Amino acid sequence: MIERLAIIGVGLIGGSLARALRAAGAVNEVVGCGRALPNLERAVEIGVIDRFDQDPAAAVAGADLVFIAVPLGAIRAVFTAIKDRLRADAIVTDGGSVKGSVVADALAAFGRIPPRLVPGHPIAGTEHSGVDASFATLYRQRRVILTPLPETDPEALARVDWMWRTCGAEVSRMSVAHHDEVLAATSHLPHMLAYGLVDALARMDETDEIFRYAAGGFRDFTRIASSSPVMWRDICMANREALSAMLARFSIELTDLSQAIRLGDGNTLLEVFERAKAARDRYVEVASPKDSPSSDADKRK
Amino acid sequence: MIERLAIIGVGLIGGSLARALRAAGAVNEVVGCGRALPNLERAVEIGVIDRFDQDPAAAVAGADLVFIAVPLGAIRAVFTAIKDRLRADAIVTDGGSVKGSVVADALAAFGRIPPRLVPGHPIAGTEHSGVDASFATLYRQRRVILTPLPETDPEALARVDWMWRTCGAEVSRMSVAHHDEVLAATSHLPHMLAYGLVDALARMDETDEIFRYAAGGFRDFTRIASSSPVMWRDICMANREALSAMLARFSIELTDLSQAIRLGDGNTLLEVFERAKAARDRYVEVASPKDSPSSDADKRK
Repeated sequence: MIERLAIIGVGLIGGSLARALRAAGAVNEVVGCGRALPNLERAVEIGVIDRFDQDPAAAVAGADLVFIAVPLGAIRAVFTAIKDRLRADAIVTDGGSVKGSVVADALAAFGRIPPRLVPGHPIAGTEHSGVDASFATLYRQRRVILTPLPETDPEALARVDWMWRTCGAEVSRMSVAHHDEVLAATSHLPHMLAYGLVDALARMDETDEIFRYAAGGFRDFTRIASSSPVMWRDICMANREALSAMLARFSIELTDLSQAIRLGDGNTLLEVFERAKAARDRYVEVASPKDSPSSDADKRK
Repeated sequence: MIERLAIIGVGLIGGSLARALRAAGAVNEVVGCGRALPNLERAVEIGVIDRFDQDPAAAVAGADLVFIAVPLGAIRAVFTAIKDRLRADAIVTDGGSVKGSVVADALAAFGRIPPRLVPGHPIAGTEHSGVDASFATLYRQRRVILTPLPETDPEALARVDWMWRTCGAEVSRMSVAHHDEVLAATSHLPHMLAYGLVDALARMDETDEIFRYAAGGFRDFTRIASSSPVMWRDICMANREALSAMLARFSIELTDLSQAIRLGDGNTLLEVFERAKAARDRYVEVASPKDSPSSDADKRK
């Protein structure tokens, strides 16, 4: 049981955690914190949080568990604001999509790695944001990666592990660097391609006509380009190195593909497409017993 | 009413046309033709076609309407096979994703543009193939582009227009070159990015682990990489010029994005992401009154 949960950033991620823990009867009181007052008022109105304080230091007072779900660019300031107001035994965890930057932020703010800080990342989300987009089942059968450090207190780690399992998630552990590489490949790079594609089309003449003839495949392909621009700017800045390496790798792939098309090299094209289809079909097969074939966004409907 | 419809290529596209026309009571007899005997037998068994002949010349005999739905690389051979066996008043149309190559194939096979050839392209599909993947509502509220030529008989054009409207589609007209540019942007380029991304990941070490941590967004983004490799090889070969131009355009976009990430240029990133999100949100808004928010694939379930 969590006595008092402080959620810094009551949006899709933070709001869904509160809803899931409430639904499981695993939390007594939820205190919210955020910059947008209407969103916090709305969060109280729909019962996601019990009360709020816009000052992070006040919001974490007396909390036994603090969950930080603000954009990555705002995490260091939150650490700095709360460091002297945390209960001595308070556990702090976060939902940031990049872990290296969160650890660096903690080091800068606390002067060391706090033993009761458990860096984490729920691999879940939709392209929507704000507390109204949150729902209790967001984390069900989703993966959560925790990236404990040598300094991390095993009891704090076990408690965060329990928290996520209570929400229905599958928890695994990974090193900080490995997490950031895996996510650059499976999430950050695809977002860059989707944003880049839509932007390239948006900058063409006759944009309206082009989008008019886009079919369902295009909608699926570009759904992630409707995600929060600020969040994604922060992710790019925070995971510069791993993402740059993945972009370079993809760029070589695209150059090879472009050349095969220009030269009319059907064999190379067929080889690439067959390898990709086999990998995706195998992946979907692996994933489908647990995950729905439809997107997160569809699932909410 | 179509008296005898010949469908060359009884897969998702050809099978769905037959089903839709049957459902509308707009066709009397459907004759199928294809290379895979089990697929044709299956098509008869489930009532998509009445009978079949594996020889295209025999299959089109006596047909008043011929629909060609084979991969683009096989179209010229079909034209050549049927040209001397078509009824004098038979209308021929196709479902090829590239129109310039179909027109070139017709010119090569017939020695001129046949007035009763109406090049067409239904913008619909799923990542599945074969007659079992076909369904009667595939074309409902989908766009079909017809690309008539100066030589095209207006009565033949009107008849193909009517055929697609009978299936519930919205029909529009475009020049051959413009069609191929628009589709390169909205369909062919996205497929290259999806295939390229999955292939790049499939070639990395720890591929299994990488795919394991991919979330719903990745599944949507890569769904089109499960499409038919042969079909897509043919599309790339057939639309080389327009697709190469789009790839070059995207490549510049990606280079700019990569540089902004490497330099930590948050303002540029935010600008790109905001422009892309605005374009996509506007596009989805425009499209949503008619189209479902879920993908073609989801829709079938």
